[in-house]
Amino acid sequence: MIRKKIVKDLIKIVGKVDVLTEKEDLVAYSYDGTTSWVHEPDVVVFPTSAREISKILKLADKERIAVTPRGAGTNVSGGSIPIQGGIVLCSTKMNKILGIDKENLTATVEPGVVLMDLNTALAKEGLFFPPDPQSFLGATMGGIIAENAGGPACVKYGVTKQYVLGLEVVLPRGDIIDVGSQTMKNVVGYDLTMLFTGSEGTLGIISKAILAVKPLPQATKTIVAAFDDVAVAGESVHHILSSGVIPSKIELLDNWVINSIERLQPIGLPKDAEALLLFEVDGVPEAVEKDAERIEGLCKRHGAKEIRIAKDKAEADRYWLARRAGFAALFSAGPTIMAEDVTVPRNKIPDLIRRVREICEPRGIEYTVIGHAGDGNLHPSLVTDKKNKEHFKKAQEAMDMIIESAVALGGVVSGEHGIGLEKKRFLMKTVPPMALEIMKGIKRLVDPNNILNPGKIWEE
Amino acid sequence: MIRKKIVKDLIKIVGKVDVLTEKEDLVAYSYDGTTSWVHEPDVVVFPTSAREISKILKLADKERIAVTPRGAGTNVSGGSIPIQGGIVLCSTKMNKILGIDKENLTATVEPGVVLMDLNTALAKEGLFFPPDPQSFLGATMGGIIAENAGGPACVKYGVTKQYVLGLEVVLPRGDIIDVGSQTMKNVVGYDLTMLFTGSEGTLGIISKAILAVKPLPQATKTIVAAFDDVAVAGESVHHILSSGVIPSKIELLDNWVINSIERLQPIGLPKDAEALLLFEVDGVPEAVEKDAERIEGLCKRHGAKEIRIAKDKAEADRYWLARRAGFAALFSAGPTIMAEDVTVPRNKIPDLIRRVREICEPRGIEYTVIGHAGDGNLHPSLVTDKKNKEHFKKAQEAMDMIIESAVALGGVVSGEHGIGLEKKRFLMKTVPPMALEIMKGIKRLVDPNNILNPGKIWEE
Repeated sequence: MIRKKIVKDLIKIVGKVDVLTEKEDLVAYSYDGTTSWVHEPDVVVFPTSAREISKILKLADKERIAVTPRGAGTNVSGGSIPIQGGIVLCSTKMNKILGIDKENLTATVEPGVVLMDLNTALAKEGLFFPPDPQSFLGATMGGIIAENAGGPACVKYGVTKQYVLGLEVVLPRGDIIDVGSQTMKNVVGYDLTMLFTGSEGTLGIISKAILAVKPLPQATKTIVAAFDDVAVAGESVHHILSSGVIPSKIELLDNWVINSIERLQPIGLPKDAEALLLFEVDGVPEAVEKDAERIEGLCKRHGAKEIRIAKDKAEADRYWLARRAGFAALFSAGPTIMAEDVTVPRNKIPDLIRRVREICEPRGIEYTVIGHAGDGNLHPSLVTDKKNKEHFKKAQEAMDMIIESAVALGGVVSGEHGIGLEKKRFLMKTVPPMALEIMKGIKRLVDPNNILNPGKIWEE
Repeated sequence: MIRKKIVKDLIKIVGKVDVLTEKEDLVAYSYDGTTSWVHEPDVVVFPTSAREISKILKLADKERIAVTPRGAGTNVSGGSIPIQGGIVLCSTKMNKILGIDKENLTATVEPGVVLMDLNTALAKEGLFFPPDPQSFLGATMGGIIAENAGGPACVKYGVTKQYVLGLEVVLPRGDIIDVGSQTMKNVVGYDLTMLFTGSEGTLGIISKAILAVKPLPQATKTIVAAFDDVAVAGESVHHILSSGVIPSKIELLDNWVINSIERLQPIGLPKDAEALLLFEVDGVPEAVEKDAERIEGLCKRHGAKEIRIAKDKAEADRYWLARRAGFAALFSAGPTIMAEDVTVPRNKIPDLIRRVREICEPRGIEYTVIGHAGDGNLHPSLVTDKKNKEHFKKAQEAMDMIIESAVALGGVVSGEHGIGLEKKRFLMKTVPPMALEIMKGIKRLVDPNNILNPGKIWEE
């Protein structure tokens, strides 16, 4: 438990209104987008500048108090849970877009800017930030960078790290440093920008970011293809990609999700289909038409039983809303949802889907497979109940087997959600010991007193 | 000077034929693509596997012998010069393409594979590796990754690091580790793949790389636009990019280069133009036509005096060969050439070009500005003579001023060539001290005896 003196010192730094210590506030900051972890902080602070962050960290370092950085708390690996109590440092009041530079195709933001707000502002200039985690309505840029977030659009546009040009970072002992630059090319010593990106808030607190952005595509087109076999759907994905067509999104929905959507919000999806692929292509209008035709042809040739090309934006929006609703439906399907984030080489998607089926069906575990088929990043998800210990244990064992299968197929244990608390033991299993030693050495170098987001990524 | 015993040990590891100690061999490995630095190694070794590299490094670490990794030696910042003697570890015999996976759009290579050979093999599968350093005829993938190389195509496709998915690295003490994976998405602890990429051979020796590749575009089109004012040409670049057209290449040639080309190999470039912009657009045929028309329109509107769209591949090839010949011409223009590699935000290109002119003209220094206008990466180059001390000093002072101008414009001191030996003092000036401390700390952590490419990147 934090001492009163520390709370007073924090108030001196950020002002009374930006320090929370009431029980109901602490509860509100005790969880994130995961369903398995909860832990209250002792205090929540809302700095409004890098200098304030610096002062908070200096204090915490001196007093050896854990500091957990947090934006909107949409994290789905437990990364923003203050598992050791201490201070939650919340960036939501640092939410200014500092500049949009249309000539250089860059945007400079504070960490608390919500991705949706950034894209709304960028759209006015004909620009957008391509990575699109499905939490974009709430997720903040600091967290998106710290987790190296992905999303559906990564098949064409790549992940967040490919858009991080420069960062202002407050180090655990309070130093404020700039790494990277405003330029696309930069080979000036080790790439510290990439070191902080994806470090899950354990190496420094991002207080400003310079991001690359892209011109909005002139046209988009959405295509839905229904399949009788989810594995055949998976195979179609790599037939399309290796044909040279790179859609901006390729999402996979299985029969469970299709029917959830049709129950919640019927839009006429084929309920008997075992899988749907939802494609978006973007670019200049002429290319988009051709790409849509090519996808239609390839899906037909590779076993699709029904294909629709959305006639207009309204129809396309319905499909994409359904895709998001599908994930929402999942979280209302039972008291506890285990949503995985494994990534396999794209051509192993059918194998992984078969394995999930083989693991879950004989065990009587309700499951669904939804995900970003274009880049092999799937979210096999199991419906269970933490309070039903026997079922929960069975589900955990099944999930472990799924993760091990993904790794055996040449995959990784996290594609876009990060390790946080949820995947530490899998990281320990899959990262070579010497690589882990380097990671730990870097952590010790930058954060010798281990105050910043302690207890995350690896077992101590 | 290395002891005979060490040479014997090296012969035991790689075999007699793969250890060179004759004077004429050592001279051949004493320089790279720079013109200012020369230093002989004591011995050159050619390992053929990660295990051999591991044994060499264990020996060198134990005996505290400097090891300089080297591929084809096309480096242009002195990075592959064995400035402290010792061992040159040359990867050119590890030149196998281990696999091309068309379904996953990846290629796995040994470090000694030449980029040109990789692209020839990829083309047979309808694929390509987008970053295109102008040394692609000789440069090897290990060096391309270690320097995070760029090239003209980065304006659309990004730099090398965006294509490095996974690496096998031999650490300075001989451990062989795998970092990254075959998947596009991977958030499993700190991004060590990005740490080794661009580390200029100071943290480990890349013994294998998994690279992302792309489908070859179906069509390309080349456009040449001539301008009366080099600064106006620079302005056209960001007008085009902010219009939403992203060419695959935008190269800038100034009057000096145009006339050099026309002298060496006349192809009818307008000799009175103060600058040429050379564009390539790629994609599906329909989009390429439209993009070429848009570029033509925008260049006209923004002051181009002449525009040509290449009628066929032969004409396009002539322009691109001329672009490369221009750089070759530069290196035959005088006994010593200082070729810079600064990068500024794209919209600062006209300012930088004006500054180069203001600095060089009153000092009577022959100069040219050539470079990748699309990403702000320019190579202002000065013609001088190391033996003419007075002129050389004047040229050095001018170059320092140019670099300082680039930094003052929000740029960086190296865009794609790296720091190596050439830019150490500029790195020391522009990287924040605390960031440099982190870099040095990482180096100490991974290479405690400082055996791997010592003397590079920063002043000890």
